[in-house]
Amino acid sequence: MSETSERQRHEAIVEIRRLLAVEAGDEIVVLVDPLHASDLADVLETLEEDERLRLLELIPAAQASDALAEMEVDEHPAELLAQMEPGRIAELVEQLADDDAADLIGDLEPEDRERVLESVSDPDDIRELLEYPEDSAGGIMTRELVSVRSNANASQAIAEIREHASDRGDFYTVFVTDEQSRLRGIVTLRDLILASPSAELSELWNDPVAVVPVNMDQEEVGRILSKYNLASIGVVSADGRLVGRITFDDVIDVVEAESTEDILRFASVSDEEELRGTTMGAIRSRLPWLAVNTLTLSAAAMVVWAYRDTIEQLAILAAVMPVIAGLGGNAGTQALAVTIRRIATAEETADERWSAVGKELVVGVVNGLVIGLLVAMIAVLLPDTEPLFGAVVMVAMWANLIVASTLGAFFPIVLERFGIDPAAASSVFVTTFTDLFGFLLLLGLATKFLL
Amino acid sequence: MSETSERQRHEAIVEIRRLLAVEAGDEIVVLVDPLHASDLADVLETLEEDERLRLLELIPAAQASDALAEMEVDEHPAELLAQMEPGRIAELVEQLADDDAADLIGDLEPEDRERVLESVSDPDDIRELLEYPEDSAGGIMTRELVSVRSNANASQAIAEIREHASDRGDFYTVFVTDEQSRLRGIVTLRDLILASPSAELSELWNDPVAVVPVNMDQEEVGRILSKYNLASIGVVSADGRLVGRITFDDVIDVVEAESTEDILRFASVSDEEELRGTTMGAIRSRLPWLAVNTLTLSAAAMVVWAYRDTIEQLAILAAVMPVIAGLGGNAGTQALAVTIRRIATAEETADERWSAVGKELVVGVVNGLVIGLLVAMIAVLLPDTEPLFGAVVMVAMWANLIVASTLGAFFPIVLERFGIDPAAASSVFVTTFTDLFGFLLLLGLATKFLL
Repeated sequence: MSETSERQRHEAIVEIRRLLAVEAGDEIVVLVDPLHASDLADVLETLEEDERLRLLELIPAAQASDALAEMEVDEHPAELLAQMEPGRIAELVEQLADDDAADLIGDLEPEDRERVLESVSDPDDIRELLEYPEDSAGGIMTRELVSVRSNANASQAIAEIREHASDRGDFYTVFVTDEQSRLRGIVTLRDLILASPSAELSELWNDPVAVVPVNMDQEEVGRILSKYNLASIGVVSADGRLVGRITFDDVIDVVEAESTEDILRFASVSDEEELRGTTMGAIRSRLPWLAVNTLTLSAAAMVVWAYRDTIEQLAILAAVMPVIAGLGGNAGTQALAVTIRRIATAEETADERWSAVGKELVVGVVNGLVIGLLVAMIAVLLPDTEPLFGAVVMVAMWANLIVASTLGAFFPIVLERFGIDPAAASSVFVTTFTDLFGFLLLLGLATKFLL
Repeated sequence: MSETSERQRHEAIVEIRRLLAVEAGDEIVVLVDPLHASDLADVLETLEEDERLRLLELIPAAQASDALAEMEVDEHPAELLAQMEPGRIAELVEQLADDDAADLIGDLEPEDRERVLESVSDPDDIRELLEYPEDSAGGIMTRELVSVRSNANASQAIAEIREHASDRGDFYTVFVTDEQSRLRGIVTLRDLILASPSAELSELWNDPVAVVPVNMDQEEVGRILSKYNLASIGVVSADGRLVGRITFDDVIDVVEAESTEDILRFASVSDEEELRGTTMGAIRSRLPWLAVNTLTLSAAAMVVWAYRDTIEQLAILAAVMPVIAGLGGNAGTQALAVTIRRIATAEETADERWSAVGKELVVGVVNGLVIGLLVAMIAVLLPDTEPLFGAVVMVAMWANLIVASTLGAFFPIVLERFGIDPAAASSVFVTTFTDLFGFLLLLGLATKFLL
């Protein structure tokens, strides 16, 4: 339970620090032994870099490698691995599942990567996994799966599993293959246990909805596994051979990572920024967006500059400007967020998707009318204003909210059609456009009717 | 595979529509029979409401109930259920897993809920589930779990499972309990199959990290299941009795729903808005936020209004205003998004979390300096401006980005300390504050040094 493990972790950290300082290796091994790999990973993340390395050298290889695999990518477990001596690297990598090994090694700089791979006695499996794009089915799958012959019956299959799968980590599904490694069907452990021992596997296996091609995008893999509530999904090569499997825990990680990516892109943060990364990384990831935004906002500034005579005569317009721009930005951001999330989570036809634009248009018309009236009312209550001023503000506000709302739905849908991540329709573009449009309308109308 | 099922779905829909129109019930049953429940749910979502009802009446109860359970909540499957006649309702609900039944019935209006529950022959299990808060462990668990006696050995356990669990849906874990239903341990199906038949369960069961209290927040449940890579987690009552289980597929749904909630709140959309909901629902969910924003922006307008004499004399300031406000908003939103996601996904101590504020301060200082110089340079290149004008713009821009960045980290962390969802620190508040502060600084400095 989380509070217990929180307290355990804190106590463990204080004690481990003390023991590391006095170099009491044996006591550390005893202390760390009962910790779950994920809790040990938390402990490691809290220690200083040199303490991390010393702890990982001291404890058994199996425990050290499990903890490395469970550390957050932001904490750079791969770099810890690369700092160890070749013998220890080989020990740890051989204890890892192949996908965890490939993930760690894939995070290294090319020269470190080669050095680590040379320490490992049998690096071919890892090399093969490293060749798949990181965000494809091949990039997140493990090659370590449990398969049985298609002509076995249930009790033969269980015997085969007992013989060959005892070194496999958690598995939930048995893949049934023919002599050419082609996937014939998938049997869940539940069905295998419940089946009569003499039942043929061919009676038990399911229609393989649970199969994806090795080059499928990881987001799509996640959608399929989640849609069909599968604990495990098979990965096949172009010629139909079963090459790996992906389990629900990989998919939970993918769903979380994609959500983080979406919200960061939406807020104009480059998706390379790590949530707990360095200050320098944050500066580098955000500055280009701010620079782009400076240029886009300069366009809005030019509109205002063009109407400087109007503003000199009617300075109250400068007070209304931030209200028009702010509310346009807000309404556009609302429509954007809903549309981006809709595209990310729902399976829809193009028609269904385009209907979102019509809906947002109506939302803009209604909300724009209400907010336009509200803003106009406030404006007219100010001293020295006339009803016509209220009317100009009202029209500018209303039109701006209609445009903002419609654009907020239109923009991500168009990007998606062109194969660009719709979340790249960051709010910056929509807010800049509504600034520009809102100012043009407000100042244009004011110049025509109020001077 | 998704393209196949996409095509299948489209073909099925055209054909089902035709057959529904000519009332060819038997042919529909044959056509729909091979569809996976999730694909049938997609079909239902595409049909008109009256077609949905007719289809659900025609097909076997087991298939109809599975499809209802797989429909998106946005599509209101519960209302479909409520429109059927009592006998059919009873048939369908009895086929559903108890948690799916509770989810459906929980979505109904109170009077429909009672009517549906009265049709069901044994509603007590469902009533009990309905009493737990929707977003708690109790609210997402199922009571249908597979448990065995703690004094059994592996082969006795398998025999017990064969006898009692054949009507259970997918399961991955066996819960081991004593006579008082208290949880003693958890055995994965993998371990049970790999174990020697005579092995005692007590040798096989794992330390129950995989247990959560019934009142735990669903987000925390998701974090634990995902942290320890568990397919299934037990839920216990306050007195230690095992009352249900939660599986990975529930958690994937929770992770997706919470991510949607975060991005919507962040963009000032009420989390009650459904992604594919009605236009009226969208208007109602967003209008209050726009109204609040109108009032907060009025404060920024007041600042500008107070400096109207300055603007009348130096209208170029009105052109600089949107640049200062826009970039402040952008930098604040960047810091907000990173901090909100960091809080949502990482386990951190308070110290680690507060360090984010220091980091954002430095990011603001550096990025503010660069962007301030850039904006000042553009400003000085305009006709009729003097270097001192550039200096004022530079200082206002710089200070505003520092405040925006720091506040973007500070605000969600403070909310979290007070037990409020940090994502409620929607960008509206930060952008309004940076508007206010930026204008005050720009116009204040301009009044002092440029007039």
